[in-house]
Amino acid sequence: MAGNNLLYAQSGGVTPVINATAAALIEAARGHSDRLGKVFAARDGILGVLEERLIDTSTLTATDLQALAKTPGGTFGSCRYKLKGMDENRREYERLIEVFRAHDIGYFFYNGGNDSADTALKISEMARSHELPLQCIAVPKTIDNDLAVTDNCPGFGSVAKYIAVSIREASLDVMAMASTSTKVFILEVMGRHAGWIAAAGGLAARRAGDPPQIILFPEVPFEEADFLAAVRDSVERHGYCSIVVSEGARWSDGRFLADSGTTDAFGHKQLGGVAPVVADLVKSQTGFKCHWAVSDYLQRSARHLASATDVAHARAVGEAAVEFALAGRSGVMPVIKRLSDAPYSWTIDSAELGDIANREKTVPRDFISPDGFGITEAARAYLEPLIRGEDYPAYGSDGQPLYLTPDFDYLSPRLPAFEV
Amino acid sequence: MAGNNLLYAQSGGVTPVINATAAALIEAARGHSDRLGKVFAARDGILGVLEERLIDTSTLTATDLQALAKTPGGTFGSCRYKLKGMDENRREYERLIEVFRAHDIGYFFYNGGNDSADTALKISEMARSHELPLQCIAVPKTIDNDLAVTDNCPGFGSVAKYIAVSIREASLDVMAMASTSTKVFILEVMGRHAGWIAAAGGLAARRAGDPPQIILFPEVPFEEADFLAAVRDSVERHGYCSIVVSEGARWSDGRFLADSGTTDAFGHKQLGGVAPVVADLVKSQTGFKCHWAVSDYLQRSARHLASATDVAHARAVGEAAVEFALAGRSGVMPVIKRLSDAPYSWTIDSAELGDIANREKTVPRDFISPDGFGITEAARAYLEPLIRGEDYPAYGSDGQPLYLTPDFDYLSPRLPAFEV
Repeated sequence: MAGNNLLYAQSGGVTPVINATAAALIEAARGHSDRLGKVFAARDGILGVLEERLIDTSTLTATDLQALAKTPGGTFGSCRYKLKGMDENRREYERLIEVFRAHDIGYFFYNGGNDSADTALKISEMARSHELPLQCIAVPKTIDNDLAVTDNCPGFGSVAKYIAVSIREASLDVMAMASTSTKVFILEVMGRHAGWIAAAGGLAARRAGDPPQIILFPEVPFEEADFLAAVRDSVERHGYCSIVVSEGARWSDGRFLADSGTTDAFGHKQLGGVAPVVADLVKSQTGFKCHWAVSDYLQRSARHLASATDVAHARAVGEAAVEFALAGRSGVMPVIKRLSDAPYSWTIDSAELGDIANREKTVPRDFISPDGFGITEAARAYLEPLIRGEDYPAYGSDGQPLYLTPDFDYLSPRLPAFEV
Repeated sequence: MAGNNLLYAQSGGVTPVINATAAALIEAARGHSDRLGKVFAARDGILGVLEERLIDTSTLTATDLQALAKTPGGTFGSCRYKLKGMDENRREYERLIEVFRAHDIGYFFYNGGNDSADTALKISEMARSHELPLQCIAVPKTIDNDLAVTDNCPGFGSVAKYIAVSIREASLDVMAMASTSTKVFILEVMGRHAGWIAAAGGLAARRAGDPPQIILFPEVPFEEADFLAAVRDSVERHGYCSIVVSEGARWSDGRFLADSGTTDAFGHKQLGGVAPVVADLVKSQTGFKCHWAVSDYLQRSARHLASATDVAHARAVGEAAVEFALAGRSGVMPVIKRLSDAPYSWTIDSAELGDIANREKTVPRDFISPDGFGITEAARAYLEPLIRGEDYPAYGSDGQPLYLTPDFDYLSPRLPAFEV
């Protein structure tokens, strides 16, 4: 007999709104208690499935779910763990089947990016080959916005808003300081292979000459002379220069700027950070005083500045995942389909996991201005709707957001322990 | 005859709410148009006075002033320029007198920190010795919270809120990732000589074991072995470790950690950044995967997350400065006086500039926990009221804050040009 419990898991780097997807999925499932069983959540993604560390979400109240939807991080824990192919790794697949059977799981939801879509696809194929009646649905999230098929990825819009607002704010600061102090400000943003987040920084520049005056994309090889000329030009025209640099910015030979060989006092190679490399270059070649910031996890956990549009997307894919389950679908992902830019309108569509897994969508060249340092109107038309609207968390009387950090109830293990 | 125009100028590093002070001051002066003339603003602080670059704020509408109050940066421009003593620098003081006389300035307001209080004091003394009927009032602002006499400094509360919220959010992220990936997260914050901002990070930790588990203060000499033991302990107990480090953290011999001698590929000494130094240390000594962020200007321009209490303080000192002017006072600064912690209550008092200028208030030892890595209840009682309440900017339909970037009307120069 097919189980009718649901198992939800989070995977890969988390986003400001992945918990909004989780909350919407749990709420949607509760609305169909006639057909669906309990919603369990794996602790730490697929690892928690393998290790049978499963949380019973039934103990979360409706109020908890409202708070969960406004909490950053991945409340159930995530993991970076990619299942190998079935032939190389039969042991782990057999274990997954045992865990699904032991807890009457009929529906598995994996909330992640393209690696997770690959994992979900493999599990879906495995279930079929083992005649396990399991429906396997991937649910999209990634701040990198690099998933194929979907118009955009839940999580990206909020990071985009945070970066657009932050570079505008920091630029107002450097504008005030430039007469006697800092002339160049550099903000490093995430996006190792795709410059979507860097592109979002360009939204802050509404008129020609507005900051950021320079964006460095992974998609455009870094040319030192052109870059330094652009910095000098901006300082001459505007008195200062504001720069957004992607962590994935690279030289024309493919090496990352961040790997330019900084070493500490002991000769150890220094941990990442492209912003200080760019600051060193500017300082040594132009003499301009620089300030630099690396937002790192701040950008992808800044739930305090989430985009309302992004939150709506994140909830919609969670709800659609349950609808897909009820419709008997498997091996699919709910995706966002754009119907029009202006007014922005969208709907939920479905994609086959085989069309999503292991693909990567980078910023198209016609979204980047001819000089390589800015975004085009086409990019703006695509990006701007994604940062619209504010969706604030509630704050307590202590001035801090009321984020949920629950003490979970774990299911009692029904199987022997398993070593991953 | 005494002039009755007002001259306002911004000085030193800007804050998320210095423009709230400016707006409140201009509004208050407009409310006394029977006794007060126009409000001019110097472009780029005292430099703009010397160079006679003066803005007529009369062209700003009431709506503009509302937007100004919610705009980060220093809209009139700031400067880092400390006037020398009168004996060494008679030429600049004579010039200031000429400019004040040429534009009928009877009131000078200098909005800054302890250096600016010193400048305001010198100008006030100079005016008296030249029999110029000028009232000189310093108005406090500094994110460093290091001014003497005042309970706290406008600007600090908003940065404190931003840091407390940001480290909480990033900690939720690392908690989700720690099972297979990042175990240690490090956030670098400002405060070269005083650890007030670092202390604010401690507000995020409400219960024992909550993140941040470690704060590194400039006031506490850095002991590598104790620090590494605390990191290992946190990872063992909680699975991860969240760290706030002040840019002013230093070794017991007084050297800054940030000056630990990182060099780039060409052997150049690298620009600042204590977070990567700490990350290198943790990585090399423990093997834990680290992520680090440097918030730099982002923290002091994050008007999108301002503290309502801080905004109220910022407005109150601007309004009080005008009241002081009307009361005939000079050589003073409006300061914040705390009446009680719980419920938090405060009023505006006045301080003599001589008691403020060139002093520095660091974090007292009884605000720092015995192990040196956290804050005490006394610190919490002091800090918490300062981050209470949210004061959001308005956002446009494009999802971005409606910050003011006005095209100013400059006064026609009445004096020959002057080279600073």
